[in-house]
Amino acid sequence: MKKHNFSAGPSILPQEVLQKSAEAILDFNGMGLSLIEISHRSKDFVEVINEARATVKRLMNLSDEYDVLFLQGGASLQFAMVPFNLLKLGGKAAYTDTGVWASGAIKEAKKLGTVDIIASSKEDNYTYIPKDYTVGTEYDYFHCTSNNTIYGTQIKDFPAVDSLMVCDMSSDIFSRELDFSKFDLIYAGAQKNMGPAGATLVVVKKEILGKTGRDIPSYLNYQLHVDKESMLNTPPVFSIYASLLTLQWLENNGGIAAAEKRNKAKAELLYNEIDRNPLFKGFCNVEDRSLMNVSFQLTEESMKEKFDNAWKSAGISGLNGHRTTGGYRASLYNALPIESVQVLVEVMKSL
Amino acid sequence: MKKHNFSAGPSILPQEVLQKSAEAILDFNGMGLSLIEISHRSKDFVEVINEARATVKRLMNLSDEYDVLFLQGGASLQFAMVPFNLLKLGGKAAYTDTGVWASGAIKEAKKLGTVDIIASSKEDNYTYIPKDYTVGTEYDYFHCTSNNTIYGTQIKDFPAVDSLMVCDMSSDIFSRELDFSKFDLIYAGAQKNMGPAGATLVVVKKEILGKTGRDIPSYLNYQLHVDKESMLNTPPVFSIYASLLTLQWLENNGGIAAAEKRNKAKAELLYNEIDRNPLFKGFCNVEDRSLMNVSFQLTEESMKEKFDNAWKSAGISGLNGHRTTGGYRASLYNALPIESVQVLVEVMKSL
Repeated sequence: MKKHNFSAGPSILPQEVLQKSAEAILDFNGMGLSLIEISHRSKDFVEVINEARATVKRLMNLSDEYDVLFLQGGASLQFAMVPFNLLKLGGKAAYTDTGVWASGAIKEAKKLGTVDIIASSKEDNYTYIPKDYTVGTEYDYFHCTSNNTIYGTQIKDFPAVDSLMVCDMSSDIFSRELDFSKFDLIYAGAQKNMGPAGATLVVVKKEILGKTGRDIPSYLNYQLHVDKESMLNTPPVFSIYASLLTLQWLENNGGIAAAEKRNKAKAELLYNEIDRNPLFKGFCNVEDRSLMNVSFQLTEESMKEKFDNAWKSAGISGLNGHRTTGGYRASLYNALPIESVQVLVEVMKSL
Repeated sequence: MKKHNFSAGPSILPQEVLQKSAEAILDFNGMGLSLIEISHRSKDFVEVINEARATVKRLMNLSDEYDVLFLQGGASLQFAMVPFNLLKLGGKAAYTDTGVWASGAIKEAKKLGTVDIIASSKEDNYTYIPKDYTVGTEYDYFHCTSNNTIYGTQIKDFPAVDSLMVCDMSSDIFSRELDFSKFDLIYAGAQKNMGPAGATLVVVKKEILGKTGRDIPSYLNYQLHVDKESMLNTPPVFSIYASLLTLQWLENNGGIAAAEKRNKAKAELLYNEIDRNPLFKGFCNVEDRSLMNVSFQLTEESMKEKFDNAWKSAGISGLNGHRTTGGYRASLYNALPIESVQVLVEVMKSL
């Protein structure tokens, strides 16, 4: 039986993506060769990576001022790459601290220069999104995390800032309509809304690069990846191909606008049950609730065994909360069908 | 028809690895979930990565003084990670320049300190392996490239050095018996002899770490990866799984010793034909010929169309030489059966 997969990442992918990926591993494009045993410089793979880059730009409605890269190392490597490429020698950057990952980004930037944490919800266990702050021109860039997977918080209105704007969208990329042209650099690990682990999406406004005066390690230098059309070295072939399939699935199903509608319907269904059912409570501030990750807890710990048995019996998987928060976390990424949320809500009602 | 795949990388993998990888994408371990949509911290995946690490140690006959990591970013990121982790502030490193990739490694190390190129075959278009050099204790480490894919040269006898010994084995790892305990750090992109693109193997003697005085970006810090058992962040799940399958295939087929025998037989067959057939000549010095990549050229350029048509008609793929050398390159990685070499030799004889 296929499970109802609420995993926080790596996470559910469309069934047709899994099917086509498996086929490509056995024989790609009828070549008599596997996708994973051909040169990354072969015509067949160059078409894959170029189409993946073009599809990202179409979905985000971005002009040719932007370039799209598929790198490796996850958001964790981006935490270092962003300051290497954007934090000038002697300059400073503004960060918001909204969770473990935001905090990880801050730690890496501090190794290269001055970092001002201009807003933080750390004191309150990251249960809300700070809102009242401004970012002046004295900063080389502003960095925020759009969605905080662990706590289930999400920025609804991005601040207007006077510096460059950088955003880690690892856990909600492609989940809702945004004016992506407000951002100068966006990055995201693939393994939530875009594809399997192993690829990292970077969308960058080209004119912002090359201004720090730093001698950047080559793999960490966005400009070199731009110059080589995301093929500075052997790219993560399989992860990029499966990401392309996922992006095509998204485009064929109404793009980001339609995905947002589906995601809102799923989130509403689950939050309504959490608010209605006295056995459950949400983890974070209501107005900051994420459409992607619903963090919640039991109000009576004695119900834990019964609830755990019930959702496991219903074929649900990946519902345990992060080790730092405990409780439960239902991740409602693009590929999760509303039927899976209905099954979870039925289980919650049945307690 | 399945092709005879001589691709230089990404390259041929055992058919059973492709089959099992495709199955795992549809349903992993009978879980009702795909390998690529489960948490990397799930029991099922933790077993994969730990078994992959253990298998590497068994195959290389290494003690617990060593740790095995599966990272991202390819050898290109290792070019930077090695000096970040081993080149002391104010220290110096010794490098050999034996090709484009060695030269890339040198470039990255120079960004962090003093690099002495103690041996080079650059002046002779990298057609041989330099041999008469020593490495003294004044160096923090010595770096060499065991096999030079583009030119088809390979180090047969590693030098005795008085510093730490670091080796890029990207294109001949697991292809021949070596005393791996002579090395302090070995790295290799997976996409030649170990698995699909997207994972990078690092084997490191733990006691050498933490001595440079540098504030290393976290993802670039080997010690953090060691501390987190190669799960500092989400690893490249699919590439690691397919690498494990390839390592198991190798172990089940006699390990490195048996692979070396097969590789020698394949290389001998092809080099014999190159030397016998007046239409062909090898690219590099005979004594430095690689068992993995056979670079060769036509002696009469007028035969090019006929030869190209002949090998393509025989179902051979991936035989074109690198753009910097031209000519032909037959990569004979572990998974290539001798039958494919026989087909190529027959084509060469038939001209």
